[in-house]
Amino acid sequence: MKFNLNADMAEGYGPWKMGDDDALLDIIATANIACGFHAGDHNIMGRVMAEARDKKVSIGSHPGFLDLHGFGRRQMKLPFAEIERLMAYQIGASLGMASLVGADVSHVKVHGALSNMACADDELSDAIVKAVHAVAPDLILLAPALSPLSKAGYRYGLAVGEEIFADRTYMPDGQLTPRSRPDAMIEDKEAALAQCLGIFETGKVKTVEGTIIDLPAHSICVHGDGPTAIDMASHVRKGMEEAGYQLVTLPEMLA
Amino acid sequence: MKFNLNADMAEGYGPWKMGDDDALLDIIATANIACGFHAGDHNIMGRVMAEARDKKVSIGSHPGFLDLHGFGRRQMKLPFAEIERLMAYQIGASLGMASLVGADVSHVKVHGALSNMACADDELSDAIVKAVHAVAPDLILLAPALSPLSKAGYRYGLAVGEEIFADRTYMPDGQLTPRSRPDAMIEDKEAALAQCLGIFETGKVKTVEGTIIDLPAHSICVHGDGPTAIDMASHVRKGMEEAGYQLVTLPEMLA
Amino acid sequence: MKFNLNADMAEGYGPWKMGDDDALLDIIATANIACGFHAGDHNIMGRVMAEARDKKVSIGSHPGFLDLHGFGRRQMKLPFAEIERLMAYQIGASLGMASLVGADVSHVKVHGALSNMACADDELSDAIVKAVHAVAPDLILLAPALSPLSKAGYRYGLAVGEEIFADRTYMPDGQLTPRSRPDAMIEDKEAALAQCLGIFETGKVKTVEGTIIDLPAHSICVHGDGPTAIDMASHVRKGMEEAGYQLVTLPEMLA
Amino acid sequence: MKFNLNADMAEGYGPWKMGDDDALLDIIATANIACGFHAGDHNIMGRVMAEARDKKVSIGSHPGFLDLHGFGRRQMKLPFAEIERLMAYQIGASLGMASLVGADVSHVKVHGALSNMACADDELSDAIVKAVHAVAPDLILLAPALSPLSKAGYRYGLAVGEEIFADRTYMPDGQLTPRSRPDAMIEDKEAALAQCLGIFETGKVKTVEGTIIDLPAHSICVHGDGPTAIDMASHVRKGMEEAGYQLVTLPEMLA
Repeated sequence: MKFNLNADMAEGYGPWKMGDDDALLDIIATANIACGFHAGDHNIMGRVMAEARDKKVSIGSHPGFLDLHGFGRRQMKLPFAEIERLMAYQIGASLGMASLVGADVSHVKVHGALSNMACADDELSDAIVKAVHAVAPDLILLAPALSPLSKAGYRYGLAVGEEIFADRTYMPDGQLTPRSRPDAMIEDKEAALAQCLGIFETGKVKTVEGTIIDLPAHSICVHGDGPTAIDMASHVRKGMEEAGYQLVTLPEMLA
Repeated sequence: MKFNLNADMAEGYGPWKMGDDDALLDIIATANIACGFHAGDHNIMGRVMAEARDKKVSIGSHPGFLDLHGFGRRQMKLPFAEIERLMAYQIGASLGMASLVGADVSHVKVHGALSNMACADDELSDAIVKAVHAVAPDLILLAPALSPLSKAGYRYGLAVGEEIFADRTYMPDGQLTPRSRPDAMIEDKEAALAQCLGIFETGKVKTVEGTIIDLPAHSICVHGDGPTAIDMASHVRKGMEEAGYQLVTLPEMLA
Repeated sequence: MKFNLNADMAEGYGPWKMGDDDALLDIIATANIACGFHAGDHNIMGRVMAEARDKKVSIGSHPGFLDLHGFGRRQMKLPFAEIERLMAYQIGASLGMASLVGADVSHVKVHGALSNMACADDELSDAIVKAVHAVAPDLILLAPALSPLSKAGYRYGLAVGEEIFADRTYMPDGQLTPRSRPDAMIEDKEAALAQCLGIFETGKVKTVEGTIIDLPAHSICVHGDGPTAIDMASHVRKGMEEAGYQLVTLPEMLA
Repeated sequence: MKFNLNADMAEGYGPWKMGDDDALLDIIATANIACGFHAGDHNIMGRVMAEARDKKVSIGSHPGFLDLHGFGRRQMKLPFAEIERLMAYQIGASLGMASLVGADVSHVKVHGALSNMACADDELSDAIVKAVHAVAPDLILLAPALSPLSKAGYRYGLAVGEEIFADRTYMPDGQLTPRSRPDAMIEDKEAALAQCLGIFETGKVKTVEGTIIDLPAHSICVHGDGPTAIDMASHVRKGMEEAGYQLVTLPEMLA
């Protein structure tokens, strides 16, 4: 009867902010900290890692494409060798920063278009996971439940955190409904909580087509930007706790 | 009767090249590999690290200011906390990339304006060395001989490689003659070799003012860009070897 | 009995926002639109220029150092030839974007460290103004009242808008009190309005040392970021209007 | 009996060089000058424009995607409104820089992936041309002969320079053979010259499939990077001149 809540964090850059990191750190138990390629820089990485450390929030490396202007949301077809290198670089940077602030990095979660592309491409998933394994084989791979990326994690012997999304619906094959579809998002916080509770209680979810599928879950992804994000995150946490689930960090979840 | 030759490497970016990395890797024994802030990116880092590994060239992290357009040569006054973070980020990235290619990082050498500023600022040197110590205390600090930066290395208990320059003259206080002075550079390769030999044989150097000062030396810095750089690097190596010195990596030099 | 209110705008980048451009455009009459070097990009430039056009807000080019990470607030010593080029590039980009959206650029206001450095350096001011004159001699130069930069504008025959600041105090020589001093800022909106009214009514201001100096003024600079900025901007506008001053664009102010 | 030779230029960035601009400027009559998005910066733009002006080489704006690391060669799917803005920004910057150095911009040539995508997309071509027309309707559009991009130029009433490539083969539909095919490139300088001469003499070209198609031509594109590029460019120019064609600028070609 435990659960994990994760969120992407430290996604400012230089003078710019993104979302409310401080508020999120009081709600979640696991922070995916951007590494400077799609967002984030050495300053915000260090500051948010230090805060996460103080608040007992477990820390993850959150690498993405080298694409500040597009926030890592633009698809880029890159050679697998380059994928391995951009993963290794960013994970290494996360580890270095964590050493500086006396914190630990315990997982990796891939960002944006790189994650989306991997979730539709076994070879790309392999390149990503190969790099994680080469740099830090003890890291947990936090990846969308049932995705090719999470499966690649198992193939390489990584610990895998299966991730579900509070505000997204599912397709019959277990993949997220594409954002281009009108039924992709769950905007009502009660509905979001209900979906999370259902998945944790039954290991199953009702898809957009009404079918019921298996969906394993270790961690629920919530957000810190947008006008209602903090409220939804807070609501999901409270609801899960009231249902008897205890919030734990990702390493504790997989222990 | 041994010596080390080091050079800054992997200072291209995206489609752009800088210097002749391949030629240098056949001459030197130690490569300072740029980390993506002033130059370099994950691709060239990975490629050059792999080549260095194959050629038994020891690898260093070569961090600088976040300033691609200015190549890290513009002075920036940053809070010491930011200095620590930019060091930790870049050293971490180097370590991550080395893990990917199955190589080791054995030293850190600071780049450009950040190094120059540190060589005139004990507190800045402390911030730099503090970060190295926090991230990877086993790394050697390669720093200009007698500089505040090398002294900070000793203060923090790091192994220190004292570095001299084949093509630069010295001031009576042991610092490099500023490039703004007409007598800063040694352009003749015989004169450059003679200075290196003299320093390794006597532990002393003749300054621009004619005085003789003590100058400890573990490693000679050479360059890979400019029309005559490879020729001078090659000449210094050959001359040192003909004088009976054996070229070794930086860790071997300090062993 | 007229006055102008200006603010820096469009200082987001890619996914990031800065300040509340929409709210500001309903308060001010003149927008200084960032050009992509210290902030801004082609998208936000185009969007905000189109909004300004619709709201009859006059548009200025707001060039700064090429320094996204430092938001153009870091001093850079650059050759004057480079200063001219970075001005010409950014002003040109502003003019091109304005043509696309069917708007006019009527002035230039320099950003951040580049403006501050110019306000202490006649030669740098000359380089800036020389570039404005070469690219678009009909542009108004909006510059701090009495500054070397505004004086350079007159020397080159540009129309000059003398700018005062609602929330900053003045030194006996007419320069802004440096932000490093505790008495640099005016945080109370009544005091800010009182200073603005005083300057417009008397052409004089009381300095931090209690002396009274002449201070010409065409335009009051207000801000859009920070929790109280919009409120202060709105208060200053209302107060000036209630005192009988009519808000006009910068070209109308100088007509 | 006249012809134009054009080349992409000023594609360095900060400390990095790309190709041999000086050598090219003595061979060609028309320079496509990068605008800082895929390559180039305000410094190299200004320097190369001034040299081009001195050597009577006509100047073009050479805009591309905002993608320094990928040199504008990565495809990006952007909204047409963003395409218009990135065109307007870069053309404006070119015009501003030309004003500074007292030169004229007489054409626009789109770079890399943006050009390639436009040559397969009428709507994208329209967005590009619409921006050129809005910013500077007197500019010539230099575009691959027979391409959707050149056709869009005519639709909007722009002067169009039909461009052929010295070192590329053609498909039966008049498009360039994709670089992924082994028969895409012409590496022999005699064969390159022969193709150029044939096209200028007959208005036709033999495709990779052996068919003969019409191919109008105003300008031949040559390159400045790669070990043999300057030699091929020089050879094509000499051969065309020996065949009686006079090298003229692009505006002279279309006059």
